[in-house]
Amino acid sequence: MRLPKQVEIIEVGPRDGFQNVREFIETPQKIAIVDALAEAGFGTMEVTSFVHPKAIPQMADAEAVLTHARRKYAGRMKLAVLVPNLFGARKAVSLAVDEMSYVVSASERHNLENTRQTVDQSLQALKEVLAEKGQVKLRLSVATAFACPFLGKTPLESVARIIDAGLEMGVDDIMIADTIGTANPLHVEELLTYLQQRYPGQAFVMHVHDTRGMGLANCLKALEMGIHRFESSAGGLGGCPFAPGAAGNIATEDLVNMLHEMKLSTGIDADKLLEAVRLIADTVRFPLESHTAKTRQIQHNH
Amino acid sequence: MRLPKQVEIIEVGPRDGFQNVREFIETPQKIAIVDALAEAGFGTMEVTSFVHPKAIPQMADAEAVLTHARRKYAGRMKLAVLVPNLFGARKAVSLAVDEMSYVVSASERHNLENTRQTVDQSLQALKEVLAEKGQVKLRLSVATAFACPFLGKTPLESVARIIDAGLEMGVDDIMIADTIGTANPLHVEELLTYLQQRYPGQAFVMHVHDTRGMGLANCLKALEMGIHRFESSAGGLGGCPFAPGAAGNIATEDLVNMLHEMKLSTGIDADKLLEAVRLIADTVRFPLESHTAKTRQIQHNH
Repeated sequence: MRLPKQVEIIEVGPRDGFQNVREFIETPQKIAIVDALAEAGFGTMEVTSFVHPKAIPQMADAEAVLTHARRKYAGRMKLAVLVPNLFGARKAVSLAVDEMSYVVSASERHNLENTRQTVDQSLQALKEVLAEKGQVKLRLSVATAFACPFLGKTPLESVARIIDAGLEMGVDDIMIADTIGTANPLHVEELLTYLQQRYPGQAFVMHVHDTRGMGLANCLKALEMGIHRFESSAGGLGGCPFAPGAAGNIATEDLVNMLHEMKLSTGIDADKLLEAVRLIADTVRFPLESHTAKTRQIQHNH
Repeated sequence: MRLPKQVEIIEVGPRDGFQNVREFIETPQKIAIVDALAEAGFGTMEVTSFVHPKAIPQMADAEAVLTHARRKYAGRMKLAVLVPNLFGARKAVSLAVDEMSYVVSASERHNLENTRQTVDQSLQALKEVLAEKGQVKLRLSVATAFACPFLGKTPLESVARIIDAGLEMGVDDIMIADTIGTANPLHVEELLTYLQQRYPGQAFVMHVHDTRGMGLANCLKALEMGIHRFESSAGGLGGCPFAPGAAGNIATEDLVNMLHEMKLSTGIDADKLLEAVRLIADTVRFPLESHTAKTRQIQHNH
């Protein structure tokens, strides 16, 4: 099989993972985990989200976490944050992040539930964000690119609508998310074939969930189709509110394990990554869904 | 991608799954699960194992389970059993099974641990089994075909040594097992490429574990290489004694889910399969590793 030699992993645990942890993780603990993950050698980490603390209380200390990370890692590791709107983007830009993620859902209904805006309103707000982003790189994250919890399979054209608009506005990067973990390898092939034909030369980041055990199979298919950047979450933190009890994001350590075993290089130190996962387990104090964590018996000892 | 249209799943839960359940499952409960699984439409089920009850007490009621299944399903579903030696094979043949599985490990050390015999002794015993099998189909199961818990990666030649011997002796079918769940898609490709070149036209059954979350990725790669028969275990029962806490066999329902979503037909009724999984959950009374079981919240209610 033809595979990229080098794979880049954007660690999103401190944002996408933490925001799904109910109990507030104290700022020093968050910072300790960011540090442990940074030790493992990620090139880019999404460290927090500038959302309103009423919407996601877990992210109330966004500025403190980012400020710490910037002081410690500026120039060594790219710092990304999620911004839901112009207000968050201004904050992020003022704090000199390297990258911002902005989410628009390919499903009109999911976008409404998620942001209380129509897709058009979200795209209008994106335009405002782009106007003020300065040197910060903006990644457009297309949520529910495969399926919507309300409307089922997402039409390819709905994904294209978001990407068309984003590229025209000048976004720097595009991420495709299997938000509810229903993608399968055939669907990955279908969507990527469509996107690669429609946008020749355009790179895509993939974000998969392991809800139904197909996370790594979907990554494999994406790799075979030339995708070489993935978002994942250490410990497999990050769930989906629409599938209670289901696994969340693909665990970074599971993905890294597969990639390394397939002789693909990631720049990640797998042992140091596991140390960070152990710290996550001790911090969140619930069993992690990560296969690697289970196999290595990484869990909080009560 | 090129995929087989039709995939056959050999359900091995009542054998490989149950034998890893510590608490004895009463015979009527075993039979109820076999019946529930049969309802889902498997073409072949490995219903038990004719091992010595001192070695695996869980299989002490092998004759009763098989006799029930034969009375109820003869001619409708092929009944397979595992036989470790000539004694077990004679028993199985006398009870008119359709298929027998006989395991030889590609790793000399693992074969010794598993059977207290050298590989040569196991192959000699296989010859005796074949001499008495009559019309019963014999499947040679190559254990540790990818890696051995003691010796690491299994040389391709060690796998070929077993298959060479088996084919020369006239086995009817060959199964390749990732016994300890360490295979990765690149290794699947490597081994299958080697075997398909060495044995043109020979079909192989695959048996994968999901220990590290790569089970479905490995199945995907095998499918892409033309493999269209898999062994799997409902509920994901069946572990590996060398990886405590790790997931065991790939869960049949996870595999069926991926196959159906990829528009491959299996002949399995996914809803009826989930009813069987629910019965398994209520019977074993521990949480199942199956992703589908978690997502559907199939679990024993205390």
